[in-house]
Amino acid sequence: MSATDPAKLTADLIRCPSVTPEDGGALPLLERLLSGAGFTCTRVDRGGIANLYARWGDKGHARSFGFNGHTDVVPVGDAAAWTHDPFGAEEQGGILYGRGATDMKSGVAAFAAAAVDFVRDTPPDGAVILAITGDEEGDATDGTTALLDWMADQGEQMSVCLVGEPTCPENMGDMIKIGRRGSMTAWITVTGKQGHSAYPHRAKNPLPAMARLMDRLASHELDQGTDHFDPSTLAVVTIDTGNPANNVIPAACTGAVNIRFNDTHSGASLSDWLRAEGDRVAEEFGVTVEMKIKISGESFLTPPGELSDLVSRAVAAETGITPELSTTGGTSDARFVKDHCPVVEFGLVGKTMHQVDENVPVEQIHQLKSIYSRILRDYFA
Amino acid sequence: MSATDPAKLTADLIRCPSVTPEDGGALPLLERLLSGAGFTCTRVDRGGIANLYARWGDKGHARSFGFNGHTDVVPVGDAAAWTHDPFGAEEQGGILYGRGATDMKSGVAAFAAAAVDFVRDTPPDGAVILAITGDEEGDATDGTTALLDWMADQGEQMSVCLVGEPTCPENMGDMIKIGRRGSMTAWITVTGKQGHSAYPHRAKNPLPAMARLMDRLASHELDQGTDHFDPSTLAVVTIDTGNPANNVIPAACTGAVNIRFNDTHSGASLSDWLRAEGDRVAEEFGVTVEMKIKISGESFLTPPGELSDLVSRAVAAETGITPELSTTGGTSDARFVKDHCPVVEFGLVGKTMHQVDENVPVEQIHQLKSIYSRILRDYFA
Repeated sequence: MSATDPAKLTADLIRCPSVTPEDGGALPLLERLLSGAGFTCTRVDRGGIANLYARWGDKGHARSFGFNGHTDVVPVGDAAAWTHDPFGAEEQGGILYGRGATDMKSGVAAFAAAAVDFVRDTPPDGAVILAITGDEEGDATDGTTALLDWMADQGEQMSVCLVGEPTCPENMGDMIKIGRRGSMTAWITVTGKQGHSAYPHRAKNPLPAMARLMDRLASHELDQGTDHFDPSTLAVVTIDTGNPANNVIPAACTGAVNIRFNDTHSGASLSDWLRAEGDRVAEEFGVTVEMKIKISGESFLTPPGELSDLVSRAVAAETGITPELSTTGGTSDARFVKDHCPVVEFGLVGKTMHQVDENVPVEQIHQLKSIYSRILRDYFA
Repeated sequence: MSATDPAKLTADLIRCPSVTPEDGGALPLLERLLSGAGFTCTRVDRGGIANLYARWGDKGHARSFGFNGHTDVVPVGDAAAWTHDPFGAEEQGGILYGRGATDMKSGVAAFAAAAVDFVRDTPPDGAVILAITGDEEGDATDGTTALLDWMADQGEQMSVCLVGEPTCPENMGDMIKIGRRGSMTAWITVTGKQGHSAYPHRAKNPLPAMARLMDRLASHELDQGTDHFDPSTLAVVTIDTGNPANNVIPAACTGAVNIRFNDTHSGASLSDWLRAEGDRVAEEFGVTVEMKIKISGESFLTPPGELSDLVSRAVAAETGITPELSTTGGTSDARFVKDHCPVVEFGLVGKTMHQVDENVPVEQIHQLKSIYSRILRDYFA
């Protein structure tokens, strides 16, 4: 049989309008392909989200290689600004256009095509697992976590996992992610007492307290980075009052900070720090400071070793580039997988992700499939 | 002839719906009364605003006593919450209800009635001037300033002026204003560079700069007050960003501060200070800080002396209370008059001004007329 074409599969997936939480037919398409190739497929839908678990080989195998990815995409955005149909998968000059072309229908297509051909051509003594979700771009509460919960219940296990997100900043092969910083957001409300600007002593202005708090949070050096991580960062993302009257001292104001943190911290330790700083200004200014904190993901690190070496060697062999092992960037579903098995991330150049005219060179989809294929061969060799 | 009834005149004025910039027939009503009493009346309208200048006696008199006030009122607000027609001038239990009952149709009625009776009963060797505007509650750009501009052009001059605004905080007679703090507002825009919360080094977040600036402005002690003035105050009235995305560092944010300042400062000196603080954080954070500053009024003081003694004595004689000489509170048109002649302010208890069911005890309108009458008698004695 001929090789499975990952570019054609990417195009077919782009034609499924799978803006979170819609599936748009993407997972049934993959299920047909994988079932036909001998994979045992199970839909693990939860909370209106479609998820697909596919395993080739027996459940009990000690050695199993897992791929994780998502078929949902972010919205089209400014539709009028696109020069190609976002769901048309038009190819022009060797470039394939469409929402999800980079993030990450091509990644899913590349590992699905690699897996299908690999188990057919060189059936391994082990299992190959694909855990594909329809909820990564949204809240991610019923996506990869639903798959991992179900796997734990069923005794399904990946020995190692590769997440196929775009990871390369400039050139194909230049970066593997071996960890990610954690991410958390604190929404802060400072409440005082409304009054007239001419009589500030009769009011309790919440804004100076908010300003002092935000200045302190933004000025604080969280850490200086570690061997594998950049320094943690805190960004004040908004402060809002909505008071149009310059003769009125407002009763309350709100703000939010987003923290990206390395393994020097945890969501809990940072929450404690934030709340202590909130209490401090509450005391100093005689106001009330309330915080709602959401920890989107803890930091994680898969220290350089067997798994990162395996992926690095394959990348270098196929691209001629030795990838950097990095922990930069936002969050990904690897933050969930890391509680189950060693996990690294490798995929395409991410430059056009989430943008108008998102696109991918067709050649790079084939190159990515070649890398994933080599990883499978080497892992089971 | 019988005495002019200031309560009836107040009621007639309340029935004129003169929400700024509408006149509602208020000034024609006063013009009829004053013309009939021998006042030379001139309408000094400007920019769609009705203003009335009325003089009894010759223009060239060395000794002239002026009254200043306004017939325009603030909007009704929550009409459903009123238990009396805001423009009905209903009297119940000796209380007269309506928008402007306190601020300040009663004040205008009291000084108009006092002036009419005074020139009729004891014609003075001098002039009595009434400068009444329909634009005090609004922008006040075409109100008392229009009258004063016109007076300067025409060679019209008040030797001294009493503004009839409500000045008493608790009881009739307890406070005369001999000055007012100045007021200014600065609208501040801090502009940086938008970016992703995960990559703050690629962005330039304007919010920490805004927080630092506002903390500094709010923490700064402007002065410790003077013999006649409370300390100047600065209120941060708003900070706004409008960024709903916790993964986005915003490009810009806005804020505003309102300063009430005594004669230690001027609008210009405070503008210099604000701009210097803006430049300082712009430098520290590498952002742009822009300020739009509006000086609503400079501070002024008519030092205790002849005019305040005259008013104090009359208040004490009619109420039994020796009024406090104060410079507290917001702004009034006295801030314009002070450039032309010595000015003080005295009027009713201001508790219900601008509120639902604004009202005035009828007895206090008569008491106010008695005080104004005594001031005229004593001034020309």
